[in-house]
Amino acid sequence: MKNKINKEALDYHSRFPAGKIKISPTKNYRSQKDLSLAYSPGVALPCIAITQYPQKAYEFTSKGNLVAIVSNGTAVLGLGDIGELASKPVMEGKGLLFKVFAGVDVFDIELAEKEPENFIQVIKAISSSFGGINLEDIKAPEAFEIERRLKKELNIPVIHDDQHGTAIISGAALINSLEFVGKKIEKIKVVVNGAGAAAISCTRLYKKLGVRADNILMFDRKGIIYIERNDLTKEKKEFAVKTHINLEEALKGADVFIGLSIGNILTTEMLLTMANNPIIFSLANPNPEIRYNLAIKTRPDAIVASGRSDLPNQVNNVLGFPYLFRGSLDVQSITLNEEMKLAAVFAIARLAKEKSFGKESIIPHPLDENLITRVSSAVARAAIKSGVARKKITDWNAYEEYLFDRRVIKTLY
Amino acid sequence: MKNKINKEALDYHSRFPAGKIKISPTKNYRSQKDLSLAYSPGVALPCIAITQYPQKAYEFTSKGNLVAIVSNGTAVLGLGDIGELASKPVMEGKGLLFKVFAGVDVFDIELAEKEPENFIQVIKAISSSFGGINLEDIKAPEAFEIERRLKKELNIPVIHDDQHGTAIISGAALINSLEFVGKKIEKIKVVVNGAGAAAISCTRLYKKLGVRADNILMFDRKGIIYIERNDLTKEKKEFAVKTHINLEEALKGADVFIGLSIGNILTTEMLLTMANNPIIFSLANPNPEIRYNLAIKTRPDAIVASGRSDLPNQVNNVLGFPYLFRGSLDVQSITLNEEMKLAAVFAIARLAKEKSFGKESIIPHPLDENLITRVSSAVARAAIKSGVARKKITDWNAYEEYLFDRRVIKTLY
Repeated sequence: MKNKINKEALDYHSRFPAGKIKISPTKNYRSQKDLSLAYSPGVALPCIAITQYPQKAYEFTSKGNLVAIVSNGTAVLGLGDIGELASKPVMEGKGLLFKVFAGVDVFDIELAEKEPENFIQVIKAISSSFGGINLEDIKAPEAFEIERRLKKELNIPVIHDDQHGTAIISGAALINSLEFVGKKIEKIKVVVNGAGAAAISCTRLYKKLGVRADNILMFDRKGIIYIERNDLTKEKKEFAVKTHINLEEALKGADVFIGLSIGNILTTEMLLTMANNPIIFSLANPNPEIRYNLAIKTRPDAIVASGRSDLPNQVNNVLGFPYLFRGSLDVQSITLNEEMKLAAVFAIARLAKEKSFGKESIIPHPLDENLITRVSSAVARAAIKSGVARKKITDWNAYEEYLFDRRVIKTLY
Repeated sequence: MKNKINKEALDYHSRFPAGKIKISPTKNYRSQKDLSLAYSPGVALPCIAITQYPQKAYEFTSKGNLVAIVSNGTAVLGLGDIGELASKPVMEGKGLLFKVFAGVDVFDIELAEKEPENFIQVIKAISSSFGGINLEDIKAPEAFEIERRLKKELNIPVIHDDQHGTAIISGAALINSLEFVGKKIEKIKVVVNGAGAAAISCTRLYKKLGVRADNILMFDRKGIIYIERNDLTKEKKEFAVKTHINLEEALKGADVFIGLSIGNILTTEMLLTMANNPIIFSLANPNPEIRYNLAIKTRPDAIVASGRSDLPNQVNNVLGFPYLFRGSLDVQSITLNEEMKLAAVFAIARLAKEKSFGKESIIPHPLDENLITRVSSAVARAAIKSGVARKKITDWNAYEEYLFDRRVIKTLY
């Protein structure tokens, strides 16, 4: 069975034409006249216009719908550092998702560069032609510095999706879970197992959503992140506490377990000691910190989310990134700021509550066709309101119709 | 009239969606199953395969059909140094030509970098995901160093099309013109006006085709390239002569005038002094060194070629670059060598002779649908024969059918 799936995956990729993406013209090209407009001599006109007003690149080129997905392949899926070339199938796949969910065009750029400063310089050099940059599968702590610098130094949206994508989706899941079980975010005790890029970013966002700093305990491979450790990165220090206990002790009476670590680390014994209606985000992939069915059987009062598509409450970044960029691009945003990310969190959470809201549907299904209109327009509004949009939207009804048309997947099977 | 064409060109580029290219999936994506093969978890399989055998990137990703068109916008059309962003319409346009003539997918990369060493490092860093690199509209002398180094240091085809494209097409035009007028290439006297990247590359190729070094006189803005000048680049020195005469004197009795310079520099007086059946390649764009009609009227015995699509004998790079890369990619060539370029010259020349060969059709029409089968297969054969192909072709009939299918433009209007 496993071999059959392996073969299917390889066949899917190797079938002619190899890979998953192609380029197509969007304009006519069948007459000599067409070609004289697309290339010499007609093409000189938009070139001159952009020379005079660089902003015109959004009008005359594909920049405004074009995102670079950039990876050096140092932290790919569960595979680790496989190098830039071997990461290309993932980046093409992510490009495919950008396109089919939100109509965003993607160039996947696989970068043979691990040193942050050089990585940053390469991306800065090639950034002019893109409307946004999605950093992907870059290992921590390099990913933090790369994202921080590019955000600061470029005038287009930049996001490291492994950090913020997971944060946004799990943040939406968290506020909906709390509403469902009737707990206040200011009072919950949260245990985060894992202290990589995604865990750090998730926990930062939960604090913005209202979780109190002294109610958070974070663990890495070596145990709890506490202040007397001398091996902590700058990012981990943000979450260092005075308490020195182990994971088992930390979970006693905890309301929330966030797992972004390794498989099967959360035992049934630990789970049984958690508070009533525990919220378990068991996000390690492909093997979660605790199996969904085991968690529910052990604690029928729990709300459980995982990263798996075959189970309820899938925390899947595809709920976020296509629409974050769609909304950002549509207003020619100069950045992707906290206001826009929070707008996405609340739009995703709200959409789930309009549906058959329940403990097995605390977040929307990844294929929900309303995501594009709700999330993208929330992001676009937030960009305009926070003053980072170069372009305004006046007719929001027309914009939502446009958004619906951008989605390539119309019918689901 | 001119304003109307300007408006048409701007409208063509700005019509929704802005720009000229888009990305599309080449594989199924409409079911959750499809998406699980395209992305997580199925995508791990090709990643692992490529980690083990890097060569598998040609099998499981779009690398094998993907060319990067790279420019820093320092020498764009007749516009000069307009910067990387303003060059994007040209690069998208060239990508469109690659696609519609030969089915080659192109990412246009506009590079904010003028310093050759940095330019080279950026391209090396992003090169893994491409099957070839087309350098475009980069000013000389930087372009020479950039091409030389990338050719040497990368294991995929690299070509600066402004140099070699023009050389290949005009080379084919030259050998056919000489055949038509019955002159031997070893005996002709050639005057080259212009000493930029294209002129240098053309003249080098003509020497390989048989023109004798002491029968060539080259001119730049300051006059003849002669050995006592102390302002010559390394490349110009290759063509330095002992003679110190002006263009007017040089043209007396000359058989060939190659213009890659500025408009209207070749006067009727000069033309009248040239040998019988003079061959005039008046390639400056948009204003040629001498107007086609004026040249023919002055010397009815001349063969005249230009860069203009509204006149006979258009020396248009589109006769070459789509098919050079098509053939190179199809055999996964590690380089684009002289053998492959010469094979393209002779294939283009041969094709013209099969048609209504005459002094107004010394090279094929740019839209000739046989170009892809003839030129690409000649290039692929030369790659295999010269030992630079990673992949062999066994069934050449099947390959030509495949080639015909790659061409997107089937019917011409």
